[in-house]
Amino acid sequence: MKLRIVVTLKNGVLDPQGKAIEHALASLGFSGVGEARVGKLIELEVADGTSDADIDAMCQKLLANTVIENYRVERPEVSGQ
Amino acid sequence: MKLRIVVTLKNGVLDPQGKAIEHALASLGFSGVGEARVGKLIELEVADGTSDADIDAMCQKLLANTVIENYRVERPEVSGQ
Repeated sequence: MKLRIVVTLKNGVLDPQGKAIEHALASLGFSGVGEARVGKLIELEVADGTSDADIDAMCQKLLANTVIENYRVERPEVSGQ
Repeated sequence: MKLRIVVTLKNGVLDPQGKAIEHALASLGFSGVGEARVGKLIELEVADGTSDADIDAMCQKLLANTVIENYRVERPEVSGQ
């Protein structure tokens, strides 16, 4: 099955890449642009029987730095997206 | 309104970060892990009246490198997520 793992910076953690996007969009003449935050999207193919505990362990050990980042797992098939 | 812009590498473009994740997960003892691809997720706050053409222009001029990357725009409010 295919998983989408979304890793985003926690609120309050400075996001320089997001700030750069805000300033660049303003410089390019786009008005009305507010906050920008940049995260990672990891599309991962795993075996069908992979347990939620294993997926959580993958995120906590490797994919996300849980000190400064949140993660959530989306299962495109189950949610019908 | 808040937009989610998902930027992913096109098929066929080498993804070293994804390969590193595949190998690292295997080294950590997770079996059954297949392909991993890493993309960017940009959460952008824009004014409510922003046109689709403007959003497309932002993606093409700044947020995505359309030579090697695809992008899609998700509107969480509209789709009810």
